[in-house]
Amino acid sequence: MLAQFSITPIGKDARIGEYVAQILKIVDERGLDYQFTAMSTLVEGEWYEVMQLIRDCHNLMRNFAERIMTTIIIDDFAGRTGRLKGKVENVEEMLGKKLKT
Amino acid sequence: MLAQFSITPIGKDARIGEYVAQILKIVDERGLDYQFTAMSTLVEGEWYEVMQLIRDCHNLMRNFAERIMTTIIIDDFAGRTGRLKGKVENVEEMLGKKLKT
Amino acid sequence: MLAQFSITPIGKDARIGEYVAQILKIVDERGLDYQFTAMSTLVEGEWYEVMQLIRDCHNLMRNFAERIMTTIIIDDFAGRTGRLKGKVENVEEMLGKKLKT
Amino acid sequence: MLAQFSITPIGKDARIGEYVAQILKIVDERGLDYQFTAMSTLVEGEWYEVMQLIRDCHNLMRNFAERIMTTIIIDDFAGRTGRLKGKVENVEEMLGKKLKT
Repeated sequence: MLAQFSITPIGKDARIGEYVAQILKIVDERGLDYQFTAMSTLVEGEWYEVMQLIRDCHNLMRNFAERIMTTIIIDDFAGRTGRLKGKVENVEEMLGKKLKT
Repeated sequence: MLAQFSITPIGKDARIGEYVAQILKIVDERGLDYQFTAMSTLVEGEWYEVMQLIRDCHNLMRNFAERIMTTIIIDDFAGRTGRLKGKVENVEEMLGKKLKT
Repeated sequence: MLAQFSITPIGKDARIGEYVAQILKIVDERGLDYQFTAMSTLVEGEWYEVMQLIRDCHNLMRNFAERIMTTIIIDDFAGRTGRLKGKVENVEEMLGKKLKT
Repeated sequence: MLAQFSITPIGKDARIGEYVAQILKIVDERGLDYQFTAMSTLVEGEWYEVMQLIRDCHNLMRNFAERIMTTIIIDDFAGRTGRLKGKVENVEEMLGKKLKT
């Protein structure tokens, strides 16, 4: 399945890049296919491994802040894999042009 | 922690109430403190029990649809419980009036 | 249409109830059908009036914090109204029992 | 401000790429800085122009489906621009390595 998540500390400085960096370190080392954007991290894998990764990131953020807001959006399409790139390529093919990705 | 989730089948009829009802049956029987609204279900508990409940609901929906979109928003405030009602009461106290809840 | 929104200041104290209270004052006075929960505010109306309300609330929060995260989820079903209560009642009827609402 | 949005038709086929392609055509032609991913579209601009774009995309989807779910997450940091790329570069600098973006 494909998931998009973000983990935000509430009650810290408005500049949270250093915390996000620590979380991305975990994501990058985990080995799942992922994409990091300015608003969230996308990751593809089975429910268990995706949710374990998000929980690990959430727990790490708890070392930095007493209150955390974590948002997760899951797109689970039975039997499909390779969708992190595949969905984007599919739309580009339909349009017959490259988009900003 | 407090979580708000919704589980939506993609590619079924636009009327999905019967599927949502099956999911709420699971939520109601699980015994965690919850609240059902027109847009999502709120539930309060530990990470493991909340996520297990959401996974069970997600898996049930997979019996009805090949593609599912599940949205989860978590508000995790260290050491706090009873927030499903407490947060609302706190705001009403600050305003000195009852809100529509 | 039906919308669910929350407005969170980033970089303030973890206790944000006083800011949420100011926002709910706006929502309550606006006169649209709404419901306030521990995780978000639901509101029903036309696109323009719902979005204007959310923008007003977002702008108010900007008086309190330099960085704000606003989450909006819209469920727009052509030609339907009265869904804030109607969707919940529909599910309860299907189950033949009252849920925690 | 920075916004991330997705527009999903409910009650159509599970394969919705052709509708998403029509929406991305609008986004690409609008001229705002944007990024298209497998889960959502990011866009940067003023509240009015971002919300007008999302509304136009939402309205287009209404030509294809009677029920639509639109999710919007806004990160509004006073006085900052160029964050679509800037936030990602900032995290990469902190980590001292390139991430998958």
